[in-house]
Amino acid sequence: MKNLLKTSLLAAATLLVATSVAAQQLKPEEMIQTRQAGYKTMAWNMGKIKAQVEGPADKFDKTLTANAALVVKAVANSGMGSLFVAGTDKAIGDIKTRVKPELFDPANKEELGKIVGNFVQQANKLAEVAAGGDQKATLAQFGEMGKACKACHDKFRIDEKK
Amino acid sequence: MKNLLKTSLLAAATLLVATSVAAQQLKPEEMIQTRQAGYKTMAWNMGKIKAQVEGPADKFDKTLTANAALVVKAVANSGMGSLFVAGTDKAIGDIKTRVKPELFDPANKEELGKIVGNFVQQANKLAEVAAGGDQKATLAQFGEMGKACKACHDKFRIDEKK
Repeated sequence: MKNLLKTSLLAAATLLVATSVAAQQLKPEEMIQTRQAGYKTMAWNMGKIKAQVEGPADKFDKTLTANAALVVKAVANSGMGSLFVAGTDKAIGDIKTRVKPELFDPANKEELGKIVGNFVQQANKLAEVAAGGDQKATLAQFGEMGKACKACHDKFRIDEKK
Repeated sequence: MKNLLKTSLLAAATLLVATSVAAQQLKPEEMIQTRQAGYKTMAWNMGKIKAQVEGPADKFDKTLTANAALVVKAVANSGMGSLFVAGTDKAIGDIKTRVKPELFDPANKEELGKIVGNFVQQANKLAEVAAGGDQKATLAQFGEMGKACKACHDKFRIDEKK
C-alpha cells in the first residue's frame, strides 16, 4: 500500500513535469509546419544571396547579402532537429511532409549527425564570409552551403513531384 | 523621331532592369507563403524564449534563449517588407493571408514605418539582452518584443477565426 502510494506520487510528479514540458511543446503537425517554415525562411534567404553573388559586381548589395546569411546561420543554429520527432515522419491529415522515414532510423544517426554538423558549420562560415563583404568569397562559400543543404536533401528528403 | 527612339531605348532599358530584378523575385503567392514562413519561424522562437524566461531560474537555458533571439533579430532584419507588395493583399487561390488591406494604404505608410522600425529595434535589443544571459532582463525585453509584434497585429492583421 505504501509502495502503491509512492508509485502514485511518482506518477503524479512525472505527469506534472510532462505537463510543464508540454506547455512549451508543439503538436506533431505543428512541428512539421514549423520546420517547413524554417526551411522556407532559409531558402528565401539563400535565394537572395544567390541573386547577389551571381549578379553583377557593381550591383552587389553587401548588407542585404550579410543579413540574409545571418538568417541562414540563426535558423541553422536554432535546434531544427527538435522538430523531427517520432510521429512527424509522415503526413498528418492535410499537413504533408517530404521527410524520408530513413531520417528517424537509429542506424542513420551517425550519418545524420555528420550532415547536420557540416550544415551548421557551413552556415556559420557563410555568415562570417558574407560579413566580410567580398562577392567572390561569398559566392564560393554559398556553393559550400548549397552542397551542405543538398547532402541532406539527397539522403533524407523525398523528391518533389514535378 | 529622336525623342521616340530615346523613349524606346529608355523603355527597353527599364524592361531589362525589371527582368533582371524579376529573376530574383517570387510570385505573389510565394511571397505570401514566404512571409508566413518568416513569421512562423519568429513565433516558434518567441515561444522558446517565453518558455525559458517564464520558467524556473535553475532551468534557464541561456544558449537556447540567445540563439532563439538571434533568429528573431535576423528575420526581423531580413527585409520582410519586400514580401508585402501589390497583389499580395488577399488570398490567391488556396493561399490565404490575414493581412488587412490597410497595410497597403499609402495613408498608413508613416504609421507602418514607425511600427516596423520599433519592431526591428526591439528585436535587436532582445538579441543583445538575451546574449547577456540574464533571465529577468530577457523576460523584460521579451515583453517589449511582444508589444512590438502586437502593435502590428492589432492594426494590420485580421483576427484569427476561432
